[in-house]
Amino acid sequence: MLRTRFPVPTQKDDPSEAQIVSHRLMLRGGLVRQASAGIYSWLPLGFRVLKKIEAIVRAEQNAAGAVEVLMPTIQAADLWKTSGRYEDYGLEMLRITDRHEREMLYGPTNEEQICEIAAEFLKSYRDLPKNLYHIQWKFRDELRPRFGVMRGREFLMKDNYSFDVDEAAARLSYHRMFLAYLRTFQALGLTSIPVRAESGPIGGDMSHEFVILADTGESGVFCDRGLLDQPVPGPVYDDPEALQEIVDRWTGPYAATDDMHEPARFEREVPDSKRVEARGIEVGHVFYFGTKYSEKLGVLVDLPDGSRVPVQMGSYGVGVSRLVGAIIEACHDERGMLWPAPVAPFQVGLANLRQNDPACAESASAMYDSLTAAGVEVLYDDREERAGTKLADLDLLGFPWQVVVGPRGVARGVVELRARATGESAEVTPEDALQRIQGA
Amino acid sequence: MLRTRFPVPTQKDDPSEAQIVSHRLMLRGGLVRQASAGIYSWLPLGFRVLKKIEAIVRAEQNAAGAVEVLMPTIQAADLWKTSGRYEDYGLEMLRITDRHEREMLYGPTNEEQICEIAAEFLKSYRDLPKNLYHIQWKFRDELRPRFGVMRGREFLMKDNYSFDVDEAAARLSYHRMFLAYLRTFQALGLTSIPVRAESGPIGGDMSHEFVILADTGESGVFCDRGLLDQPVPGPVYDDPEALQEIVDRWTGPYAATDDMHEPARFEREVPDSKRVEARGIEVGHVFYFGTKYSEKLGVLVDLPDGSRVPVQMGSYGVGVSRLVGAIIEACHDERGMLWPAPVAPFQVGLANLRQNDPACAESASAMYDSLTAAGVEVLYDDREERAGTKLADLDLLGFPWQVVVGPRGVARGVVELRARATGESAEVTPEDALQRIQGA
Repeated sequence: MLRTRFPVPTQKDDPSEAQIVSHRLMLRGGLVRQASAGIYSWLPLGFRVLKKIEAIVRAEQNAAGAVEVLMPTIQAADLWKTSGRYEDYGLEMLRITDRHEREMLYGPTNEEQICEIAAEFLKSYRDLPKNLYHIQWKFRDELRPRFGVMRGREFLMKDNYSFDVDEAAARLSYHRMFLAYLRTFQALGLTSIPVRAESGPIGGDMSHEFVILADTGESGVFCDRGLLDQPVPGPVYDDPEALQEIVDRWTGPYAATDDMHEPARFEREVPDSKRVEARGIEVGHVFYFGTKYSEKLGVLVDLPDGSRVPVQMGSYGVGVSRLVGAIIEACHDERGMLWPAPVAPFQVGLANLRQNDPACAESASAMYDSLTAAGVEVLYDDREERAGTKLADLDLLGFPWQVVVGPRGVARGVVELRARATGESAEVTPEDALQRIQGA
Repeated sequence: MLRTRFPVPTQKDDPSEAQIVSHRLMLRGGLVRQASAGIYSWLPLGFRVLKKIEAIVRAEQNAAGAVEVLMPTIQAADLWKTSGRYEDYGLEMLRITDRHEREMLYGPTNEEQICEIAAEFLKSYRDLPKNLYHIQWKFRDELRPRFGVMRGREFLMKDNYSFDVDEAAARLSYHRMFLAYLRTFQALGLTSIPVRAESGPIGGDMSHEFVILADTGESGVFCDRGLLDQPVPGPVYDDPEALQEIVDRWTGPYAATDDMHEPARFEREVPDSKRVEARGIEVGHVFYFGTKYSEKLGVLVDLPDGSRVPVQMGSYGVGVSRLVGAIIEACHDERGMLWPAPVAPFQVGLANLRQNDPACAESASAMYDSLTAAGVEVLYDDREERAGTKLADLDLLGFPWQVVVGPRGVARGVVELRARATGESAEVTPEDALQRIQGA
């Protein structure tokens, strides 16, 4: 992609309204633009990251046997009156009255709506299990929206809902999603830690948040280092015993965020040398809530004995737009972003330091063509801009590879190839550059 | 995909609320479910069609040089007060007040919002041309929502906006989108006809609607048969002369919908044998509107001579969710839907007529595995249902190919392979079935 065609409105100076690094870098890098308080437009570069995250989340949901649907953003208030949450939700719910004076709302989550849908085709225990997900925009009218996309009002979330005949089956569904989350965050280039979360009204042990470590994280995280080092398992979604073993292995060692932290237990269970005290960001939540909604919204199935019971449900959320910010919090340095390859908007940033020099332009174009022909995603900075501006932009935007074309190198038939994360740099022929990038 | 895992809640009877065939078939086929008046949840099957259409629309926009962004659904009312449309839009605009009593709205379209974004990075004539698009949910609070997704309140639309330095450049952008639309509808498996549309306040000839023919269409269409027969051109987006020639070729012959029809001209220009009088459905609109919004919202660029002018704009829309209904209107028979292959939710429907017969189950499973291994999208009806129900569902759901496994065929080592559109049917070996499907 040519930067002259692909708008990336970078800014030199830190925007004054941004308090955290991801928000600053997303504005400075031209990934998003605030439309209103807590509401963002995704500019071309940010949009690419958002779509990559979405695709990775989707692929693992499909692998785990969840089926994708899409519920609308605007819901009828009546549904929420039935569940009793219409009043409970308070001012965070964006309430709307349509032209016929009907009470509507912008969905902050979808338990009610999915129950209404499921009630139509879940009739018998034979129709279970089912797991439906969607990736859709939600709205929560936060009192003080801040931290950019980390705590916006309009946000993109993947949420699914599992339906099972009894608690044992629900536990299996929960385990599947637990594994799916470990695998999803790994596929995004992140190390996630499941921590015990508040279990809500029905109690039990099936409620976990997934956090990733970041020095600038919102919560304190206390855990056993072993959790960070164990390899993420393969997609054994059809093997209940393997799933149980995985969940045991990931929930056995101590791990907690501030709100659930027990210092005495931490010191007792984790040897000094393995204690990790760090900061983290919540990026996912898995939660079993039994029949809380299925009872109220009438999602009932017939059992073999002729009786009729409400289905057992769980919900599972990943904040897709929030992850863009969270990844930057976890992956940046003082010069800018450091994208993990799987979610990098482009794998390569190509800068021509002397756009009006015909030899440089020719060399950069040839480099661009050969990368593109090899299927490498590259953003070619072909603007007429100062060399310093282009180099600073490369660092700011944080593509894994930088290829710099300048007059001295061109005279010798070489380009400069740099790895953004390590700073390693080498003068290589264009052919070598391509080969090293492809080999990575 | 196994139907026991993938909910497709088909109904035998026509739903009473549906007046048009696409609405009836989408409800009967379990593609969508109404959430509120004019607001739909997309069930797994409908969602797949929606995503296929979206992907085809996106691919051609990218090929034509447009760049994807994503604007939020909720916009600030102030923006629309600046353009003067806040009052004009009337009751169709869904107006919202947030917890801080700020006036917001659910975007019915995005001219204002894209101008606000573009104003930040379009500074000079050197920054032009640009073409930005997004695929996002919109809301129009229709007085009487009806016809299912054809005239819903919450709907998915691809809209783009071109920015150019002068009218000649804007015309080139317009021609590019004109070609992109011809190619997009062809890629969807449809034949589209551009018809002259109302040109709005600035006059001129740059406003066309694209319609597809369907006996049940909403408008009368009058055109020269030649328009239906000419081959759709290749992606010559970088060749202004070829583009001009294409637009001339597609706008020269007579074509009009009722509202712009001139019977005398039709009879004068089109020989009797080539006159087509049919019904059609609008599926896209391309429109040049000059500086109408750029002036009011301050999207100005510096010219080489130092002067500053508002940019020339056009907008281009495709109703993505509407297309699901439109394609069904154009492609169905008395038994159900007839999906064009590019947008079919699955290429093959596989039905096992005797699920509890071990030989049938084994044969159907093997067929499923070999289709899946070959990368063919197949929905395997593995439910314990009557043969008649399964066959009726296959016809209703309209996958291009049907593979039917029954006890008599299994005994002889054959399956029945049917082409849904033509009704052609043959008993073939499973290997042959796979080969014919792949060869299609």
